[in-house]
Amino acid sequence: MGRVTKREPVLRLDGPGATGSRDTLAAEEPLEIRIGGKQVAVTMRTPGDDFDLVAGYLAGEGVIRGPHDLSRMRFCGDTACSGPIGVSALEPDAAPGEQGCDPSNVHDPYNIVDVDLAPGVDPPLWSLDRTTYTTSACGVCGKSSIEAVRANAHWSVQDDPLLVSPETLYTLPRQLREHQKIFDKTGGLHAAGIFDAVGNLLCLREDVGRHNAVDKAIGWALREDRLPLRGHMLAVSGRASFELVQKAAAAGIPLLAAVSAPSSLAVELAQAAGMTLAGFVRGQTANVYAGAERISRLPRT
Amino acid sequence: MGRVTKREPVLRLDGPGATGSRDTLAAEEPLEIRIGGKQVAVTMRTPGDDFDLVAGYLAGEGVIRGPHDLSRMRFCGDTACSGPIGVSALEPDAAPGEQGCDPSNVHDPYNIVDVDLAPGVDPPLWSLDRTTYTTSACGVCGKSSIEAVRANAHWSVQDDPLLVSPETLYTLPRQLREHQKIFDKTGGLHAAGIFDAVGNLLCLREDVGRHNAVDKAIGWALREDRLPLRGHMLAVSGRASFELVQKAAAAGIPLLAAVSAPSSLAVELAQAAGMTLAGFVRGQTANVYAGAERISRLPRT
Repeated sequence: MGRVTKREPVLRLDGPGATGSRDTLAAEEPLEIRIGGKQVAVTMRTPGDDFDLVAGYLAGEGVIRGPHDLSRMRFCGDTACSGPIGVSALEPDAAPGEQGCDPSNVHDPYNIVDVDLAPGVDPPLWSLDRTTYTTSACGVCGKSSIEAVRANAHWSVQDDPLLVSPETLYTLPRQLREHQKIFDKTGGLHAAGIFDAVGNLLCLREDVGRHNAVDKAIGWALREDRLPLRGHMLAVSGRASFELVQKAAAAGIPLLAAVSAPSSLAVELAQAAGMTLAGFVRGQTANVYAGAERISRLPRT
Repeated sequence: MGRVTKREPVLRLDGPGATGSRDTLAAEEPLEIRIGGKQVAVTMRTPGDDFDLVAGYLAGEGVIRGPHDLSRMRFCGDTACSGPIGVSALEPDAAPGEQGCDPSNVHDPYNIVDVDLAPGVDPPLWSLDRTTYTTSACGVCGKSSIEAVRANAHWSVQDDPLLVSPETLYTLPRQLREHQKIFDKTGGLHAAGIFDAVGNLLCLREDVGRHNAVDKAIGWALREDRLPLRGHMLAVSGRASFELVQKAAAAGIPLLAAVSAPSSLAVELAQAAGMTLAGFVRGQTANVYAGAERISRLPRT
């Protein structure tokens, strides 16, 4: 996991003075996602948990719903990906040398993941697009974007009986931060965590891109055969955009909590999907923009 | 500009208590970018300065270099975009009713911008992709991504003689914040500002997406025929990713200053491009990760 951070020389300015030093930075590298050898997306991400990232990404796009929709995933450099050797989607991330790829390839085999979908699982017709929304229904207005998400959803969170106390909600960002050790080093990574109904952290993932962090966390759950995540919560270290609500909805998560502000379309989608959306969850305060019925507001005894 | 923010009801939790209120949110809506009627990209953005956004986006992708590469841009709903009436790329954003679009169209005409390139300007061969890096060279490793950026660059910043004092550098984030009035209302918008060599703010743009904010600022400069932005500085309210350095390089900007952390690939690209990259510019301190020769470190007299 040495590639999650990188050390770089830095000149530290302090008032009029300057001193040379070294700084730890969050690593960022491209990841190319292929299905059956064909490129479907490229994302700039922090290396690590890449199989989770790919699985979560495909889940968010509605391509897969569980581990059995994946035959295998493997790191691979270029033409070596047409070879027969791969690793199961359910195995931990393996080094490329174990997967039939040629490490001497000019391409970095760690930066390409090739996915074989299970028989009967349709590949996307469109070229998948990162942090944008490019299905056939896209682009024309927020309302049609929301309708497209609802039409593509495998699961509904509308009737999810999750009930969370404000006290439990308040703990989520603190737990993210406590477990987010890399953030302390670089200041450059977003975190996403999946919690059970009483606030136990089940999985935390980090990335330079908040969408990637969410994909990694949801991909972990998919590979653990935990989708849909009924009765669970997703917490993110940054803002809540439309796309993060979309990803939570696609995973069947009934509550999204963000440390910072939501966008208008994030709120509208959460309302339309019947999801609980909390923003500005800081200290002992939070703003609930949708689905407030899932917050139990009994006074402490 | 009423669509830049939206008001939504909110339940404010404070300790065990809760009160109903209303909150101002940053608006987020999809924008579809078309060239000659053909969709090339969709981005989720905050409405406003959309022609700047489109111009800056196309500049960042290397499609256009100046206002004369654009014949016209116009808002348009669906089929109405094939009509003959449009607005010049150099005119201020006009309402769709003035542009031959049918306001009764089911699509929101404000959420589609159609671009006609000038004769001799080649449209992109690929489908442009938002906040990702999907040229033919993409995906395989950071090194090849950097080489692709350098190969596509119209201008070099390597020999730009910009020289900036630490004191001037320190003022940039404060100026961003002072001029970023919408941020104060929503807490959800990123800002990007273009400054001259002595720290005068020339243009500030805001968006839910930091890439969009940068595109809007650079697009403003392109439409003002100011590219390449030799001797200028770009400051951003958030982190410095690879893509933001790429956009600055494509506009010929020799210095990028970010309030938060850079990624490893952002630093590597800045070093390779000969750009000055400063991060954690806060108060009277900053970290310079590349191009420190442009920082004058004379003691104050």
